[in-house]
Amino acid sequence: MTTYKLLLLPGDGIGPEVMAEVEKVVGWLGRAGLATFETETDLVGGSAIDAHGTPLSDATLAKADAADAILLGAVGGPKWAGVAYEIRPEAGLLRLRKDLGLFANLRPAICYPALAEASALKPELVEGLDIMIVRELTGGVYFGEPKEITTLEDGSKRAVDTQVYTTAEIERIAHVAFDLARKRSGRVASAEKNNVMKTGVLWKEVVTRVHQEHHSDIALEHVLADNCAMQLVRRPKQFDVLVMDNLFGDVLSDIAAMLTGSLGMLPSASLGAVDAKGTRKALYEPVHGSAPDIAGKGFANPIAMIGSLAMCLRYSFGLGDAADQVEAAITRVLASGARTRDIAKEGAAVISTSEMGDAILREL
Amino acid sequence: MTTYKLLLLPGDGIGPEVMAEVEKVVGWLGRAGLATFETETDLVGGSAIDAHGTPLSDATLAKADAADAILLGAVGGPKWAGVAYEIRPEAGLLRLRKDLGLFANLRPAICYPALAEASALKPELVEGLDIMIVRELTGGVYFGEPKEITTLEDGSKRAVDTQVYTTAEIERIAHVAFDLARKRSGRVASAEKNNVMKTGVLWKEVVTRVHQEHHSDIALEHVLADNCAMQLVRRPKQFDVLVMDNLFGDVLSDIAAMLTGSLGMLPSASLGAVDAKGTRKALYEPVHGSAPDIAGKGFANPIAMIGSLAMCLRYSFGLGDAADQVEAAITRVLASGARTRDIAKEGAAVISTSEMGDAILREL
Ligand SMILES: CC(C)[C@H](C(=O)O)[C@@H](O)C(=O)O
Ligand SMILES: CC(C)[C@H](C(=O)O)[C@@H](O)C(=O)O
Repeated sequence: MTTYKLLLLPGDGIGPEVMAEVEKVVGWLGRAGLATFETETDLVGGSAIDAHGTPLSDATLAKADAADAILLGAVGGPKWAGVAYEIRPEAGLLRLRKDLGLFANLRPAICYPALAEASALKPELVEGLDIMIVRELTGGVYFGEPKEITTLEDGSKRAVDTQVYTTAEIERIAHVAFDLARKRSGRVASAEKNNVMKTGVLWKEVVTRVHQEHHSDIALEHVLADNCAMQLVRRPKQFDVLVMDNLFGDVLSDIAAMLTGSLGMLPSASLGAVDAKGTRKALYEPVHGSAPDIAGKGFANPIAMIGSLAMCLRYSFGLGDAADQVEAAITRVLASGARTRDIAKEGAAVISTSEMGDAILREL
Repeated sequence: MTTYKLLLLPGDGIGPEVMAEVEKVVGWLGRAGLATFETETDLVGGSAIDAHGTPLSDATLAKADAADAILLGAVGGPKWAGVAYEIRPEAGLLRLRKDLGLFANLRPAICYPALAEASALKPELVEGLDIMIVRELTGGVYFGEPKEITTLEDGSKRAVDTQVYTTAEIERIAHVAFDLARKRSGRVASAEKNNVMKTGVLWKEVVTRVHQEHHSDIALEHVLADNCAMQLVRRPKQFDVLVMDNLFGDVLSDIAAMLTGSLGMLPSASLGAVDAKGTRKALYEPVHGSAPDIAGKGFANPIAMIGSLAMCLRYSFGLGDAADQVEAAITRVLASGARTRDIAKEGAAVISTSEMGDAILREL
């Protein structure tokens, strides 16, 4: 049996707590003979700043590059609010994404039946919701140059961010979206602001051509990003696969996640291009953040992190069966009524982060 | 009594239909001796392209500049999908905003009690909702240069949009938000992505300083734009005044509008700086778009447009009482159960655009 090299980057805040629960599942996968892993743990974000003065050391980046997959907890927190922009915790995550070429961010927004009630939306609008947001992750306003603040003659300042997209960048993310849609409902909605942004004009043009030339079996719809945000709130089930740029993807995937009422439960995958050997770089992380306010209290929900491992099994190692088992265990634990604080009804009994991990392990 | 010069720009789609209802209210204001207007009507958007080959002629811009206030319907539609980017319908609206210096876009998101049921959110989350989004409207990625598509040597393309903000631009919009908050709950939330964008870094820095120096009586909170979008869906009533850049304001104000369940009912104001005479340029328009699919059918809801006139009375002419009367008439008509198609329950009786206008007039 192949041994997979997994790099664990717990990061900051609740990251280490939820990562500890993933390690339990990794152990079980080995014992069950489903997959064996060689794991290594390293620092990223604020914890790396504290140790090395940088949110991602070159050594850690090298390990990430050599790993078969990376699991990341979360980065950031008020403790590092004062550090220079260039070495803020988020810069570590952004460098991982950029330097490893993880251009395709897959963010499923699934409403767990047991949690439909927890959504801010009316239950009938979210029951059975299953959206996949495909977010471009290494381009756009996140990385375009110039990106700077300059001081003008009168002492006032001028800040600039630059959104850049090339044909090739849009083509490859469009292919990811269409290929995913083919395994799902066969529908893609592409969101941009072509009425205001030139990158939106090119985005729409390229997605249209890629669709015509390679994926005309898929139904494609174009929607303005502001309207898309609205429609996500109004009638989310109208969408299946959504594809959009880095910044719109950031905001709209957060909305989609919130709709499900299950923010602490949603995993994500960030994938690179498939290389000659058929492998690809990949990083898996929860959609939720580092939640410094509840760090260390045992309140965090480890399900998004464990679900990220399930995505890893499926997308990086082709272990769909093992992934199914992990996901089924999560569903059963939820159906049994076990709840961490974030998903409990007011006044209902709650269990801790590690109790939730143990409960999932018992189901496995 | 002063006679105010009003320029009416109905625009495209349902624009002319809803503008016709506003004209009824303008007539009533004169007859009731509350305010007299000299109105002129002109073209903008697609209808101006059809007539003049440009979405905003210089002559129309000159009239807009000379008017005491502008009422605009909506622009755009599939009919003009093929026109060059530079003369698309939206360019007319953007030129009006930019050339008249309408930097402060006020977008109230109010949930009418009679319509709380129409929201996708659970009624208890939106009942009594009253948010004011203050969107910067003449800067950011909408207008920054370079904004272009270039063809590379290999024939592929590269698109660029540039987001620029200066200290002065952020200062003036921050003042607007704080001043508004003082008349409301005394709370402002400022949204940006300072963890990724340099314009976000400057935005947060300037808002913080303006707050300390001039508005320390107001409670200020900073929130990341993606989290803000989430929080709007999760617990919208936590917010009162929200201030943000042009693009985040575009997306987040649409979300806020959708939450209310009353998209067809929400007005907006776009204001310039106050000049030496104490006056300011101003344009009022519904938050909804031109809805070409229902244009000409009498389905459109004229309330957002009539509400925009009420905002005009209040913000441009200091006629708060007249504004109150118009708004109270709208509330009474809604309470009486009158519904256009967009806000009617399934199967319930609906009235047409002009019947809704007449009903409001009867209440006045
Ligand atoms: C932490 C931050 C830099 C990041 C982003 O903006 O991409 C986060 O919001 C996300 O969505 O993964
Ligand atoms: C029509 C379009 C250019 C406009 C914008 O993006 O500002 C609209 O969406 C709005 O919010 O007023």
